[in-house]
Amino acid sequence: MRALLLDKDLRLVEDYPTPEPAAGEALIRVSVAGICNTDLELVRGYMQFRGIPGHEFVGVVERAPGAEEWENRRVVGEINAACGDCPTCRAGRPTHCPHRTTLGIAGRDGAFAEYLTLPVHNLLPVPDSILDEVAVFTEPLAAACEILQQVHVHPTDRVVVLGDGKLGLLCAQALALTGCDLTAVGHHQEKLDILARRGIPTTLEDEAVEPGADLVIEATGHPGGYAAARRLVRPRGTVVLKSTYHGSLDADLTMVVVDEITLAGSRCGPFAPALRLLERGLVDVAPLVQARYPLGEALTAFERAARPGTLKVLVEM
Amino acid sequence: MRALLLDKDLRLVEDYPTPEPAAGEALIRVSVAGICNTDLELVRGYMQFRGIPGHEFVGVVERAPGAEEWENRRVVGEINAACGDCPTCRAGRPTHCPHRTTLGIAGRDGAFAEYLTLPVHNLLPVPDSILDEVAVFTEPLAAACEILQQVHVHPTDRVVVLGDGKLGLLCAQALALTGCDLTAVGHHQEKLDILARRGIPTTLEDEAVEPGADLVIEATGHPGGYAAARRLVRPRGTVVLKSTYHGSLDADLTMVVVDEITLAGSRCGPFAPALRLLERGLVDVAPLVQARYPLGEALTAFERAARPGTLKVLVEM
Repeated sequence: MRALLLDKDLRLVEDYPTPEPAAGEALIRVSVAGICNTDLELVRGYMQFRGIPGHEFVGVVERAPGAEEWENRRVVGEINAACGDCPTCRAGRPTHCPHRTTLGIAGRDGAFAEYLTLPVHNLLPVPDSILDEVAVFTEPLAAACEILQQVHVHPTDRVVVLGDGKLGLLCAQALALTGCDLTAVGHHQEKLDILARRGIPTTLEDEAVEPGADLVIEATGHPGGYAAARRLVRPRGTVVLKSTYHGSLDADLTMVVVDEITLAGSRCGPFAPALRLLERGLVDVAPLVQARYPLGEALTAFERAARPGTLKVLVEM
Repeated sequence: MRALLLDKDLRLVEDYPTPEPAAGEALIRVSVAGICNTDLELVRGYMQFRGIPGHEFVGVVERAPGAEEWENRRVVGEINAACGDCPTCRAGRPTHCPHRTTLGIAGRDGAFAEYLTLPVHNLLPVPDSILDEVAVFTEPLAAACEILQQVHVHPTDRVVVLGDGKLGLLCAQALALTGCDLTAVGHHQEKLDILARRGIPTTLEDEAVEPGADLVIEATGHPGGYAAARRLVRPRGTVVLKSTYHGSLDADLTMVVVDEITLAGSRCGPFAPALRLLERGLVDVAPLVQARYPLGEALTAFERAARPGTLKVLVEM
């Protein structure tokens, strides 16, 4: 099959072996896949991943041995393939299974290819009303929903989302649904306008935001976001950390103690609520799509996605 | 009055003016005060405090204008004197009031003196059955109880307390009451034995503790405790930060995101539950008292408290 392979570098190959579904797995023909910042980091060496990247996808089940009822269904899929058997899995935390593989990120080929495989129990059917180019946002929107899964956001809370990248825009839209008093802070007026058109207050200057927020979402993608988050959160407030980047951060944890701040790391989230929000049109992802390329132009797609300020670039198989 | 004054250095003075209670305040004759690590840090310049240190005390109300029912009662007192009127106070977080003074720490003379003043509504009566040398532990035990106030500790949780200083020993005893599977880690066998005698498992080697703890309390008092806590906590687990120290820490927050760890800063806690635990004998503080000195020997008491490995030193007025 044709696939985008990350080896010594990123290259298109025509004769990659089509994967064979293992027991309990389905073979899925990929329709659309989205380029995530993590994919760009993988190319730079993050996770030392070798293979086919891509973890945001929508596709159609081609074969599901032993679970034929899934065949020909349009699906999205939870990207962590857990063992299902270890104490972490049995404790209900399969996305943290120490034996997991992760689609297009660790130990498992991903979605920038004609086919991929995933365990059947990772799949969710996509309602007919959701277009492919919307359904492909299920995974990143699930990561935004993870905030709501981890933190009780009160409708009376004052909340600040830092960062107007793809994840920041999804986080802001998901949080706005709680009725909270939300401000989104970014550096690109045209991106913030996507939120402003949904009635979400925005600003280009985090200095303009009054400190004392109950909850701050740090989704800037760079270490500098932490200091802004600490400045804006109130004593006993919560900072949700969404940014992953290379290197560590010099953090004053003594002031975290004195102000009794909670810092909550937040990663992958639940797919089913994300699909429900998309189906009901409560989160608008269409304006986030900046470009589409066929798989044959996937290298160009990656170059485009890597340009600063680019929102979602889709690859169509 | 006689008092221990922190000025350019720490010295005993005989003629310090006896404080006058402001409106709503009580004048308290101090019976016993405990030396906390924070006091030692104040002497080293922490908080730039100038005045009489001391925030762990038990005493007797001498005068309480307008609240005479408090006179002659034996009391302990919440150390943060809040304005009661700002948004933070009205939101129920008076210990974080931006206008607060803090007994013997910030803007208010403390307990190493014959008298101190505190707002009447900061006071709690001490039940007759609690000795002075036990009641003086109300404040640090309240700080341990703050963990239980902030985090839902499940009886099925595996919990590790790092640090066998005064605060670590109180945290371990308070947490053990939840029925959780607790291990206390320290560097001093004779201190850990205080816990072992209460049936709490202890170890001198944090390397001997299996990773995967649901909750880790970092009460070592030094930056190195963070790395140990991160190593021991499971994905989606919680690290409660109790240590305050000078300087910042180089922390890998990306791994906090990937493992979805919650870091919770924790400081002062609720006095009433601490008094209940002391009254019921559920926390044993007697073995934590290492020495007692009269106020006239307070400088010697501070020298003794500053010796590495020393537990609680009390000053009697």
